[in-house]
Amino acid sequence: MKRTSTALFLLALAFGANAQDIEAGKKKATEVCAACHGPDGNSATPDFPRLAGQHRDYLAKSLRDYKSGARKDPVMSGFATPLTPQEIANLSAYFASQKGLQTRY
Amino acid sequence: MKRTSTALFLLALAFGANAQDIEAGKKKATEVCAACHGPDGNSATPDFPRLAGQHRDYLAKSLRDYKSGARKDPVMSGFATPLTPQEIANLSAYFASQKGLQTRY
Repeated sequence: MKRTSTALFLLALAFGANAQDIEAGKKKATEVCAACHGPDGNSATPDFPRLAGQHRDYLAKSLRDYKSGARKDPVMSGFATPLTPQEIANLSAYFASQKGLQTRY
Repeated sequence: MKRTSTALFLLALAFGANAQDIEAGKKKATEVCAACHGPDGNSATPDFPRLAGQHRDYLAKSLRDYKSGARKDPVMSGFATPLTPQEIANLSAYFASQKGLQTRY
């Protein structure tokens, strides 16, 4: 019985730790990311990439890489460094859930 | 008259040099990019970013940065380094013109 509980606890930890919260991601995105990337991740100018509809796990990896320094950008490093793993999961889930628009050139 | 011709020539050079050719971009994309990024830039896995619908000039800058080494990725450097400015313009125009899909998580 004790072994079952431990196993269940570890399972919950493994799968639950970064369970994403899209609403929390939206709130954080509005505060931090929207100025450059647009409120829904459809940035208004090509200076900043469109994030809406991008793969969730690609967004999360990008933020982790900016945080670790594996990917270098002075502005994004500044924003990504203070993010917790939970905030990264939330932000990535939020932008991935938004509809990507298109610019007509 | 000579000055006018020279001015027109320089103007054509400035604006025409990288006029993009979406069909040529599609052909090159099919040969080079599709295996990872999907034929229309909607990559099947989060290991590779979705390019469909991304800003054209952001895509072009990314390719130039991979080519110059300003942005580092061993695989992308290998693919971007041989690209000409014209091919970069074509590829960026092609992927920007495609419709970005979404993954439901």
